[in-house]
Amino acid sequence: MEQSWTHRSRPDRLERRLEFADYDSTRLFLERLNTLSEREGRFPDISFGRTYVNLTLTAEAEGEAIGPREESFAAAIDDLL
Amino acid sequence: MEQSWTHRSRPDRLERRLEFADYDSTRLFLERLNTLSEREGRFPDISFGRTYVNLTLTAEAEGEAIGPREESFAAAIDDLL
Repeated sequence: MEQSWTHRSRPDRLERRLEFADYDSTRLFLERLNTLSEREGRFPDISFGRTYVNLTLTAEAEGEAIGPREESFAAAIDDLL
Repeated sequence: MEQSWTHRSRPDRLERRLEFADYDSTRLFLERLNTLSEREGRFPDISFGRTYVNLTLTAEAEGEAIGPREESFAAAIDDLL
């Protein structure tokens, strides 16, 4: 089973790494994530290659701690999978 | 003027950082890059957030040096801007 989000500090953030079977699956996930991001007006830092996506979520205001809004956005991302 | 590609080693790679005015411009560039990647069957490592994109190109075969094919793909990416 895939690991979920990891909470790290300095800066306070949530990170998750996802692996996909092929580029089409990666791309499909990124499309869904884009739709979610535009709807929520939140744009996580994303790294991706052919078959992986790394996500980093920070609080909306720089320097703030991860709170319920970030946890909720992370859960919404999980729902895309 | 924006800096172009930087050639780094270990592993041998080309890197470029791009800044965009807003998410729409970032997104438009990523869409074009996706089309190019699918056409060429090459998938660089990409990091992005709301207004930036970082690109890393390596040789197709792991451990190989950057050659004319990578330089040419980098130039094709530049043409998307």
